Amino acid sequence: LALLTDLGVGSDLVGVLHAVARDVAPHAHLLDITHDIAVDDARAAAMALARVTAYLPTPVVTVVAVDSDAGRPVAVEVAGGQGLFIGPDSGVLASAVAIAGGAERAVILDETTLHGVSPGSLWMARDVFVPCAARWCAGVDVADLGSAIDPHLLLPGTVAVPRLEDDEMVADVTWVDRAGNCQLNVGADDLPDWGTHVAVTVGLHPGEQRVARLVANRQQLATGAVGLMVDPFGMWSLVMNRRSASHELSIAAGDQVRLAPGSAPSTSTPVQLRNRE
Amino acid sequence: LALLTDLGVGSDLVGVLHAVARDVAPHAHLLDITHDIAVDDARAAAMALARVTAYLPTPVVTVVAVDSDAGRPVAVEVAGGQGLFIGPDSGVLASAVAIAGGAERAVILDETTLHGVSPGSLWMARDVFVPCAARWCAGVDVADLGSAIDPHLLLPGTVAVPRLEDDEMVADVTWVDRAGNCQLNVGADDLPDWGTHVAVTVGLHPGEQRVARLVANRQQLATGAVGLMVDPFGMWSLVMNRRSASHELSIAAGDQVRLAPGSAPSTSTPVQLRNRE
Amino acid sequence: LALLTDLGVGSDLVGVLHAVARDVAPHAHLLDITHDIAVDDARAAAMALARVTAYLPTPVVTVVAVDSDAGRPVAVEVAGGQGLFIGPDSGVLASAVAIAGGAERAVILDETTLHGVSPGSLWMARDVFVPCAARWCAGVDVADLGSAIDPHLLLPGTVAVPRLEDDEMVADVTWVDRAGNCQLNVGADDLPDWGTHVAVTVGLHPGEQRVARLVANRQQLATGAVGLMVDPFGMWSLVMNRRSASHELSIAAGDQVRLAPGSAPSTSTPVQLRNRE
Repeated sequence: LALLTDLGVGSDLVGVLHAVARDVAPHAHLLDITHDIAVDDARAAAMALARVTAYLPTPVVTVVAVDSDAGRPVAVEVAGGQGLFIGPDSGVLASAVAIAGGAERAVILDETTLHGVSPGSLWMARDVFVPCAARWCAGVDVADLGSAIDPHLLLPGTVAVPRLEDDEMVADVTWVDRAGNCQLNVGADDLPDWGTHVAVTVGLHPGEQRVARLVANRQQLATGAVGLMVDPFGMWSLVMNRRSASHELSIAAGDQVRLAPGSAPSTSTPVQLRNRE
Repeated sequence: LALLTDLGVGSDLVGVLHAVARDVAPHAHLLDITHDIAVDDARAAAMALARVTAYLPTPVVTVVAVDSDAGRPVAVEVAGGQGLFIGPDSGVLASAVAIAGGAERAVILDETTLHGVSPGSLWMARDVFVPCAARWCAGVDVADLGSAIDPHLLLPGTVAVPRLEDDEMVADVTWVDRAGNCQLNVGADDLPDWGTHVAVTVGLHPGEQRVARLVANRQQLATGAVGLMVDPFGMWSLVMNRRSASHELSIAAGDQVRLAPGSAPSTSTPVQLRNRE
Repeated sequence: LALLTDLGVGSDLVGVLHAVARDVAPHAHLLDITHDIAVDDARAAAMALARVTAYLPTPVVTVVAVDSDAGRPVAVEVAGGQGLFIGPDSGVLASAVAIAGGAERAVILDETTLHGVSPGSLWMARDVFVPCAARWCAGVDVADLGSAIDPHLLLPGTVAVPRLEDDEMVADVTWVDRAGNCQLNVGADDLPDWGTHVAVTVGLHPGEQRVARLVANRQQLATGAVGLMVDPFGMWSLVMNRRSASHELSIAAGDQVRLAPGSAPSTSTPVQLRNRE
């Protein structure tokens, strides 16, 4: 039973969800994907979910409780019943469902006899998502969690794809990790064959341009140099060697960058000494 | 074995406690309620514990290691032996013990042969609380953890109750969650029947007043409007729709607010244009 | 399977590592030592590892993924096969290996058939360290994880020891905990017998000096007084009673302090009033 929420890392509310899960399914393995999503940031939740999906053990039920009121509560079965995604039908599950092979069955979680009873208003994660997920762990079939719906009618996700304009590619920064590496929405095979160097223009600073060298790992880069490498998730990323590319280029998740053919900077950088005037 | 401490989220000291528990009781399920309590903030610890208690699976032993030197180390049995609370006898356990049905047996943790051996000074959580909790998980009876004491002599908690003054209720903000919702110490049935709107005066800004609408959920509120709803824990809370009520009203946990009968603001807000002078 | 990384607390990348471990070894207990090490801070990782090592349950495999490219990926067996450390051969494992009794067998993790397959560049933790650790949990012998190497050729750690200069001890602050206690690299038996008080000079402020009283616990200290006590890990630490010694003395992990014989401050502090001039 894997959890992805915006409750905040270490919140006692996460403890409540764990406790509810344990109570219904004492032997289920609990796995916290992350609880560090910004409040109601469904885009970041969808991307974190997509990153982890290929690595989830099976069988697994994954609960995504971010902006839970943005869609009907649904359960989506994938991979011949080896996987189940539970969350709002808001598009937040769509990328992960696709990565897992596509939706096979889907239900609205309207079988209220399986839900928790709130002493106040409904908390979707505690009262609906996690109890249903734990029931599934305990052997309940997805069909018994609620009314079947056509999986083709689930809301699609909104994933931006990079755009080719003349001899330029317009890409988005999809993620900045803790070390400052900037993942782009450009898959390993999606970058045009422009040779060993690529010119990078940051959307917010159209005047400035940096030349990034294509590298296999960050250790190949000289101190202060910017590189482009295929990251461990198969996406092109702007990186530096033991420095933060995010800080150096002043870019954050959501920013736009323009990529174009670049030429290698001359290897020797002659320093021109000016006379004092 | 549930843990609630002020060690800090992700501290390696939490890792030490997990390791100690695993060593004594390899098959116990570990559950982190939270480690994000401010250092020595027993009040916040007591409230977080009270929030989660109703959802803890059973059987369960809950260790509260916040301001551990503020009272004798005790174990308090509840619910016919289905629950055990371990922590300092400082009042921090009292609300949770009451929610769980009241103390049935209690001991001081003075059976030192069950404790860990420190290479330096005693760390109550690592050397006493967690080893005793893990022993209980492994089948040791609470009576064997130390000397019996009268459960009626345990220190009571200090829970503030709202105060009615004339036609006004003086309440405390007990908790602000990550989305900025402000929980009050006013239970679902404790708010006088003042109709659909309540005037809210923040203690620190007595001149300012806002009118809050009673709602069942935040989605019923117009942008910028403040509401009062019974939250998922059964307490009245000041909320906004996709905004932080805490930020809007400049209130934090521990602040005082005054509630009084309010009248609905007129739906049209005529704007009076003044002539320039 | 214990994890210690610099990925950041609550990062979804930690979720990925958990998922990979669960997939290979579904029944292994996962234990997060900490993920809050600063990016690439191998020194802090080595110290956190050393603190927790004595408390790890057995059998246990501990994965340290901090600055993973700083050495060859190795597995080091200790304690008659009851413990295994996996990480870079950069010295980061050395202190913990010594605490656990010393290296008995060691291999380079070059048996690539056991590794994960990356869709992009290699992520050492996800693709090598954790898969190998999980295999070991599932019963694979350390010899089958890669080519044997001489354990004596593993890189040693760099642990600073305190230095005696004339009648002064020059020590390092090795760790500041959340409450502001400052652990020194001075073991319980390593402080010269200077009586009940020690003069403390902070390296950065050589003019200023504070006198610290030797105490068994912080409660013995008057408000505002600084003490020296053997902490729960057996090391001398600068502490205060319900205050942060780190804040009071303006010192942080890595700073140097000088200790020398001190004399008890006079109990009454006469205040000399000067005439205004």
